[in-house]
Amino acid sequence: MVRLEDIHSPRDIKQLNKQELGSLCEQLRQKLVSTVSHTGGHLSSNLGTVELTVALHRVFDTPHDVIVWDVGHQCYTHKLLTDRFERFDTLRQQGGISGFPKPAESEHDSFLTGHSSTSISVANGIAKAKALTGDDGYTIAVIGDGALTGGLAYEGLSNAGRSDDRLIVVLNDNKMSISRNVGFVARYLSHLRSSLRYVRGKKRLVKLLSHIPLIGQPLNTLLHDWKKRAKRTLFSNTSFFENMGFYYLGPVDGHDLEDLEEALQVAKGVNRPVVLHIETVKGKGYPHAEKNPDTYHGISRFDPASGAPVAGGDNFSAHFGDTLCRLAAEDERIVAVTAAMVTGTCLTNFAAQYPTRFFDTGIAEGHAVTFSSGMAGGGLLPVFAVYSTFLQRSYDQLVNDTALMNNHVVLAIDRAGVVPDDGETHQGIYDVAMLRSIPNTTLYAPCNYKELELHLRQALYDTTGIAAVRYPKGAQPDSLAEYQPTYGTYDWLSDKGRDLLLVTYGRTFGEVLPICEHRRRNGQPTSVLKLNRVLPLDEEAVKAAAEYRCVLFFEESGRRGGVGELFGSRLAQLGYTGHYAVRAIEETLGACTVSQGLERVGLDRAGITAFIQQHTEAPHGE
Amino acid sequence: MVRLEDIHSPRDIKQLNKQELGSLCEQLRQKLVSTVSHTGGHLSSNLGTVELTVALHRVFDTPHDVIVWDVGHQCYTHKLLTDRFERFDTLRQQGGISGFPKPAESEHDSFLTGHSSTSISVANGIAKAKALTGDDGYTIAVIGDGALTGGLAYEGLSNAGRSDDRLIVVLNDNKMSISRNVGFVARYLSHLRSSLRYVRGKKRLVKLLSHIPLIGQPLNTLLHDWKKRAKRTLFSNTSFFENMGFYYLGPVDGHDLEDLEEALQVAKGVNRPVVLHIETVKGKGYPHAEKNPDTYHGISRFDPASGAPVAGGDNFSAHFGDTLCRLAAEDERIVAVTAAMVTGTCLTNFAAQYPTRFFDTGIAEGHAVTFSSGMAGGGLLPVFAVYSTFLQRSYDQLVNDTALMNNHVVLAIDRAGVVPDDGETHQGIYDVAMLRSIPNTTLYAPCNYKELELHLRQALYDTTGIAAVRYPKGAQPDSLAEYQPTYGTYDWLSDKGRDLLLVTYGRTFGEVLPICEHRRRNGQPTSVLKLNRVLPLDEEAVKAAAEYRCVLFFEESGRRGGVGELFGSRLAQLGYTGHYAVRAIEETLGACTVSQGLERVGLDRAGITAFIQQHTEAPHGE
Repeated sequence: MVRLEDIHSPRDIKQLNKQELGSLCEQLRQKLVSTVSHTGGHLSSNLGTVELTVALHRVFDTPHDVIVWDVGHQCYTHKLLTDRFERFDTLRQQGGISGFPKPAESEHDSFLTGHSSTSISVANGIAKAKALTGDDGYTIAVIGDGALTGGLAYEGLSNAGRSDDRLIVVLNDNKMSISRNVGFVARYLSHLRSSLRYVRGKKRLVKLLSHIPLIGQPLNTLLHDWKKRAKRTLFSNTSFFENMGFYYLGPVDGHDLEDLEEALQVAKGVNRPVVLHIETVKGKGYPHAEKNPDTYHGISRFDPASGAPVAGGDNFSAHFGDTLCRLAAEDERIVAVTAAMVTGTCLTNFAAQYPTRFFDTGIAEGHAVTFSSGMAGGGLLPVFAVYSTFLQRSYDQLVNDTALMNNHVVLAIDRAGVVPDDGETHQGIYDVAMLRSIPNTTLYAPCNYKELELHLRQALYDTTGIAAVRYPKGAQPDSLAEYQPTYGTYDWLSDKGRDLLLVTYGRTFGEVLPICEHRRRNGQPTSVLKLNRVLPLDEEAVKAAAEYRCVLFFEESGRRGGVGELFGSRLAQLGYTGHYAVRAIEETLGACTVSQGLERVGLDRAGITAFIQQHTEAPHGE
Repeated sequence: MVRLEDIHSPRDIKQLNKQELGSLCEQLRQKLVSTVSHTGGHLSSNLGTVELTVALHRVFDTPHDVIVWDVGHQCYTHKLLTDRFERFDTLRQQGGISGFPKPAESEHDSFLTGHSSTSISVANGIAKAKALTGDDGYTIAVIGDGALTGGLAYEGLSNAGRSDDRLIVVLNDNKMSISRNVGFVARYLSHLRSSLRYVRGKKRLVKLLSHIPLIGQPLNTLLHDWKKRAKRTLFSNTSFFENMGFYYLGPVDGHDLEDLEEALQVAKGVNRPVVLHIETVKGKGYPHAEKNPDTYHGISRFDPASGAPVAGGDNFSAHFGDTLCRLAAEDERIVAVTAAMVTGTCLTNFAAQYPTRFFDTGIAEGHAVTFSSGMAGGGLLPVFAVYSTFLQRSYDQLVNDTALMNNHVVLAIDRAGVVPDDGETHQGIYDVAMLRSIPNTTLYAPCNYKELELHLRQALYDTTGIAAVRYPKGAQPDSLAEYQPTYGTYDWLSDKGRDLLLVTYGRTFGEVLPICEHRRRNGQPTSVLKLNRVLPLDEEAVKAAAEYRCVLFFEESGRRGGVGELFGSRLAQLGYTGHYAVRAIEETLGACTVSQGLERVGLDRAGITAFIQQHTEAPHGE
């Protein structure tokens, strides 16, 4: 009998028989559940794509053929089949297997994904390169219906459909868009499913596929057969993809390996871009996940038998959600917007309490910002809750549609700084630099829950233009549980000396404060400047800092374009003659826990202490 | 008889009879042609929307009802009808009437637009605010078929269609997407037009409109009549908009005022979002523009009688296009990508010479970058030519889909720095800060044509990752016609003294160089550091600069997050004890010529000279 641990390459599954394949899928599911139960990760999407992944690797030959996984959180089975079984228990851990496709990890991983809706554009580019360089391989984009709600997927479809390259888009319809009710995609795919339902349930694919026009190049015999037997069904319902320039095939049962393989073979025979629409069940095969696919979409550790998640602690996101509900009760102008991150940003209660004032735009961060700006122009107080990394998708909408008119939009920037587990595509280290380049923009960085509430109020009521509040994933630092936030733009912990000043903001203050206290106890005069409002930078704070012989800036965000650089530039322009240095995040950061990440970038207590020693010893030592 | 100059408010056109309206439209067209012939501007789109604008202002009441003009380059008639006739000759001039909607200019301008595909998201927000605040006004988005190619429009449709607000999307179909063959929109609207053609040509709208289902709220009597008489036409073809959640009405002849008004009245009666599809002719009524709508889309001054444009001079864009064609002849891996700016970026010849290696993505800058990165991964050498301001729409695609994998994509960033005529929404002043925050990114800033060619070669062959070359709109500075570019990352014009160093890059070097020469002739030792490669900043250059008593940085880009700040920060970290100051672009910049703009931001010769004097006199004077 086949054993998953003996599969070292996709070649090893090509000769398996039906029974062996069934067993393989069963073993894959067991492995997924057992691994994710102790590593955390994306479970529902991976359980839903076991058969699809097996079928893809039986019909195609990676890396000659290329699979582009949209978002990439459904690539676990792919990794298990491409020689990463043995290391799979290191999933999402520092130095381990990434939870997303990663070319540096395997030649079978074509592209570093992580953000949604990119796969068709990527595949369009790869397929075009193959066509122009005479490579006859196929390129397959695997994209979920949820990801189709992003505008980039529309741009990708519209452009890729104009090519005549060997491109197959597998639309993995797991009704994600339906569960979130995100407009067009939900409505359209629901139409497709219901109008084409009559051909489902039959075993052989012959009767499932429809509408393959015979234009252009001669098609192979298999395809001729298909064409002859295919029913011409409602043209109307497939016209979206047809107008995009694709052949539409489907829907196919995404858990029936034989149907899937045959459909993929047919798709290969069409010498033009094809959309293959398959239907899958999120969480398939693990009853807890089938029942609550959202809970098991991205999940922390859980008990595999009971399905019970290991309880997470208190965190900034929960406090944001609670605070916003309270504020909304007092002020009916407040509306909340999310781009498909209701649970992650803790807006579930807001959505339930204020359904007419809550908007989930789907994976459409660009729209979310411009829509918010429109609402602000109409007199509302929109709060867009968004992960730092996904705010990157709204840069132009922030600049042109919001800042240039000084419209008042509040951004609740979650997952700012070091983000655990997901690796380089999810770190929240660009938001500060982005916002810094934009006029009419204010950025607050609360260090504990109390300050989060204060900053939210300030963002709503004391700020014009873009008012952003950034906070990390996870809990407030223990060292700051009793810290009382102050109302001003900065807070001083001033010592009598003018030797050393540590400047920081946000969570890092929780490390800097104890270090400062420790140094003082050791008779080393040390002051701390905590920026409450990070942008615009308060010139008075810089002036006061310029009086210190040594100023060190600690920033849990990217160095490039960060506030540490701005602070240094302002010091230089004030004629500062002391010693200045910045510790910020220099490079991309793979998967890690928060504490591992902070250690790697030197923003944990040991790293900060070492940095201080390094800069206070030689020329400017005390 | 009605006279255009007597129209001071939309109220003044509501009582006009058919004949008067015809005369008004005629006068509007004459005014458009005569004004644009001497100011330059967008002609074709405005000639095509004369009747639409008149109809909108007769059926609706701004500002209670709100019109959001997508892009906004079709708002001239709207401005003429809303009390800006007298100042209309100042169109696109400093202190004059903006070529785009501008709320600061009139209460009838709802939103500052300029970038494409935003109107539906904006209108969704405004309509939602009206609904939640009990305002019964209508919100109308006017969007061209070209703008529908942008993903944001798709996100906007999908989300706006879920509301039941008083929202009307007027789809102004002038076959822009067809002329550029930009995929889905071209194909889909062409289907609509051809399948619904049988109902066109009849005079009364009754027979033109179709398919208004009677669900939900009771509709008014007019609508009942419509419903009874409406033909149930091909549901299939309207299903895209229907699935978006809109009622589809159309197509309607966009130059027939009566049909338009009646259609808008019907749209008002539907208590849900409506797409009203109208067909117009770009350049309507001015034969030269009807014949060559692209030439007159955005045009400089021209002779109204002959239609002949006033010849423009040599410029960076043309040299880019020529150079790329030459390079492509030597290297077949080179492919060119544009987002609907073939003419503007001077890729017309490339497109003709290398049709299989040229890609116009439509207004889809996000896709353009991700697609390019995919091609780069497949071994090609993609060059994406894009205006600085539109590159803002690709931030996440640059970070996540390109830089994190260190894929080699060349960006030819046109219209960088001060951009003439179009105002704040088109200034190229954010690209430097954007790129500065991104890892694995190199930025070159050529100062003349020779250096543009050198930098393009360096970007293609000596650079990994994102390799950007930024250049302004217009000609190389006369003062640099003979300047010989150097191969290194910077160029020194070193004087014996160590008093004053002027640091700059790009076009500004053309002002700084003569100033330096002038100072030297006057016995004032002055050195110049010209950054050839702006990013990453060469640490050696900073070290050398730190030896000067006074360092002044001049930057034709935004101060926030600019290289001037980075340079200052590096100086501070080197323990620099001299005087440092930055002159860069501080704020948003309305319409102006290049020289006016440079004067306003203090980057013309007089401004730079004054800045030098100010900083060399008092504490650090020579």
